[in-house]
Amino acid sequence: MERKILLSETEIPRFYYNIVADMPNKPLPPLHPGTREPITPDLLEPLFAKELIMQEVSSERYIEIPAEVRKIYAQWRPTPLFRAYGLEKLLKTPAKIFYKYEGVSPAGSHKPNTAVAQAFYNKAEGIKKITTETGAGQWGTALSYACQLFDMECEVFMVNVSYQQKPYRKIMMNSFGGIVHASPSSLTESGRKVLAANHGSSGSLGIAISEAIERAATDPTAHYALGSVLNHVLLHQTIIGQEAVIQMEKAGLMPDIVVAPFGGGSNFAGIAFPFLQMNLQNKDKIRCIAVEPTSCPKLTRGEFKYDFGDTMGLTPLLPMYTLGHDFMPSPIHAGGLRYHGAGVIVSQLLKDGLIEAQAQTQLKCFEAGMQFIKAEGIIPAPEATHAIASVIDEAIRCREEGKSETILFNLCGHGYFDMSAYDAYLSGQLVETDVNGSQIAASIKSLDALQPA
Amino acid sequence: MERKILLSETEIPRFYYNIVADMPNKPLPPLHPGTREPITPDLLEPLFAKELIMQEVSSERYIEIPAEVRKIYAQWRPTPLFRAYGLEKLLKTPAKIFYKYEGVSPAGSHKPNTAVAQAFYNKAEGIKKITTETGAGQWGTALSYACQLFDMECEVFMVNVSYQQKPYRKIMMNSFGGIVHASPSSLTESGRKVLAANHGSSGSLGIAISEAIERAATDPTAHYALGSVLNHVLLHQTIIGQEAVIQMEKAGLMPDIVVAPFGGGSNFAGIAFPFLQMNLQNKDKIRCIAVEPTSCPKLTRGEFKYDFGDTMGLTPLLPMYTLGHDFMPSPIHAGGLRYHGAGVIVSQLLKDGLIEAQAQTQLKCFEAGMQFIKAEGIIPAPEATHAIASVIDEAIRCREEGKSETILFNLCGHGYFDMSAYDAYLSGQLVETDVNGSQIAASIKSLDALQPA
Repeated sequence: MERKILLSETEIPRFYYNIVADMPNKPLPPLHPGTREPITPDLLEPLFAKELIMQEVSSERYIEIPAEVRKIYAQWRPTPLFRAYGLEKLLKTPAKIFYKYEGVSPAGSHKPNTAVAQAFYNKAEGIKKITTETGAGQWGTALSYACQLFDMECEVFMVNVSYQQKPYRKIMMNSFGGIVHASPSSLTESGRKVLAANHGSSGSLGIAISEAIERAATDPTAHYALGSVLNHVLLHQTIIGQEAVIQMEKAGLMPDIVVAPFGGGSNFAGIAFPFLQMNLQNKDKIRCIAVEPTSCPKLTRGEFKYDFGDTMGLTPLLPMYTLGHDFMPSPIHAGGLRYHGAGVIVSQLLKDGLIEAQAQTQLKCFEAGMQFIKAEGIIPAPEATHAIASVIDEAIRCREEGKSETILFNLCGHGYFDMSAYDAYLSGQLVETDVNGSQIAASIKSLDALQPA
Repeated sequence: MERKILLSETEIPRFYYNIVADMPNKPLPPLHPGTREPITPDLLEPLFAKELIMQEVSSERYIEIPAEVRKIYAQWRPTPLFRAYGLEKLLKTPAKIFYKYEGVSPAGSHKPNTAVAQAFYNKAEGIKKITTETGAGQWGTALSYACQLFDMECEVFMVNVSYQQKPYRKIMMNSFGGIVHASPSSLTESGRKVLAANHGSSGSLGIAISEAIERAATDPTAHYALGSVLNHVLLHQTIIGQEAVIQMEKAGLMPDIVVAPFGGGSNFAGIAFPFLQMNLQNKDKIRCIAVEPTSCPKLTRGEFKYDFGDTMGLTPLLPMYTLGHDFMPSPIHAGGLRYHGAGVIVSQLLKDGLIEAQAQTQLKCFEAGMQFIKAEGIIPAPEATHAIASVIDEAIRCREEGKSETILFNLCGHGYFDMSAYDAYLSGQLVETDVNGSQIAASIKSLDALQPA
């Protein structure tokens, strides 16, 4: 079998897949924080394009991808599916491991899939500027790229800890024309409040979202865009899994397990939903595993309840697994996974036992990342190493049980802008913190026990 | 037409193409610096694998690629060929522009094509360690990656200015298991001599080569590897052009112009030689243009003569275009192009009028790079922007002359490890120096005149 399974541009999906159509229990509605009544779509219009609001509440199974968006996707899509022969060999596992590589996109991750769509719909409605937040910078880069394609301005509030850790991400956003602020900033009331309480705040996605929303809400020519969590964002990412289904068919194998890192849900939804569709429609039994950091464990240790999507409470109340909207995650290097809540759809699927969740420590993730570099020659983003850590666990289980299962995971982005994190790891400076932010381990040496034989 | 032209793994070339077989005037022989007699291959055996020495002096047209090497190539090859629709639109040119994208390799450039082959042949002869130099770090990364595949040690002397400018390149080499020293270093006699004369030397490829050669020559289990200049290195890179020939055939077009950046010649040879073969064999008239920096202009302002390949004079005398082996290039960001000489084969081809050479300023190259980012969404390595600058010149000429020529260039690597260079450019800190190292311009503002309309 070839090492890479490639598709032609004619095989770029024509529709986004909306899993709501197939869910046994539909997601609960977002509530107005004052009245606690379900919100009406028009309340969202100051922030989002009408077409995106329609997608947010749609229960149609398939939503057509605009031709112009498909044309832009063709710059890097379909993305390759790799057979991880090197990793299988390193782990001496009978498991067959595949990964879908989204790092070939202009922003280096899966994020442009939705950024391009969101920019397109906003442009179509005459919007001049889009504001957003970014954690590790992947999303801000993607939206900067997408806005530039449509001649719109892009303003990014970047979580302060990542802004400090990843200066080159900022330059990349600037190269694509994006304007970047460290968050919390003094540009918004939300930011000023946080800074007043803690001048050196490392920030969080929740705070950055508050800032970006406030900025868009006070500018009639601007809209806001979110890179994960919301239904329409997850929807756009399903092109990843749709391509992977075709590619796995070409490989003559279907996965027993599909694994993805979990921040707000778009990465996981992107690869998993088209396989979950088989479970829901055909009674297939593909295990779909979302992997989060142990330091931000909303799926494995959070509570399912109505909570705000941002720190300051500017969003509607969303029914989700959450650690509380004021939860302040440790400054781990996987900035894209530092979010207190899980998207509404994914939360409902987890509550209904239709998907699984696992948590991995930062040290184990970097160790997994190093094994992947050695075996496959690609440097994964810290977010992606969470999936790799769980894939390695499952592959070792397969070895121990003598099972030849097929495992597919989403290699959602490359780590070329995260070399300071690998530097910290290689020099024994990486710190492990628990959910309360207490340091529980440091240094490379504590990892010896984690090495697969 | 599709935006990307992809090939299957079965289309990875089976042979390296040796242009010596088709050259009207064969390259002059390297000379022993003492006797000035042609050197015999056995003199090279302390440094190189026998198979590589045979390739170095071969005049066979095709040299078979080992199956194991082809299998490794399949990790990222064949690389995609892109139609640059975005750039064509931006330039309003009737020219058809294509680029072969080598940045998809594990090291992010074309360098693994030869690194893997060199590591393979050295391993086959029982070598335990390979030493080398690196400029921007692309080559050192590639050799670190390749050595790890074959369980060999890799020791890299990295030109000091790049070592300072690109710390993450060092970490990437470390991630692939490479050991990296800033050059000049105190580990070698060559390095110590340079440091004694200039304690803060920014280094050069010539000095780093001296150090790496000295290190290999004094260790019987070690060999040396060069990332460009030598015949066998250029040979290995011809798989780029061979793939591009098939891809252009699939596009139904043959290039009128082939463009590549020029450091020592491997990048240019890689894409151009299979097209030059058509010129030499079929009397086609494809213009092949090598593009160098104005601050290191051996092709456009150097002299064709016998000179050393390194600064200290440890190599045989090579017949080449050179600025003198003690030439100290300005610390431009395109570290891979800071070499005083041109490979022997390319020098002969230029002398015989079979190829063209152009020089571009650093400021114009970064301006071209920014246009490419905007139009195509890929951040090019500073080396690659030299090709882009000349491609833009030719595309504008086509517009002015109303000609629809087909232009192909080698996008030899991505610039994700060169963001400090883009930062310097965007913040107006980029300095332009002439061949003597004098500053002739700085800041982004001086570029207004260079903008295509």
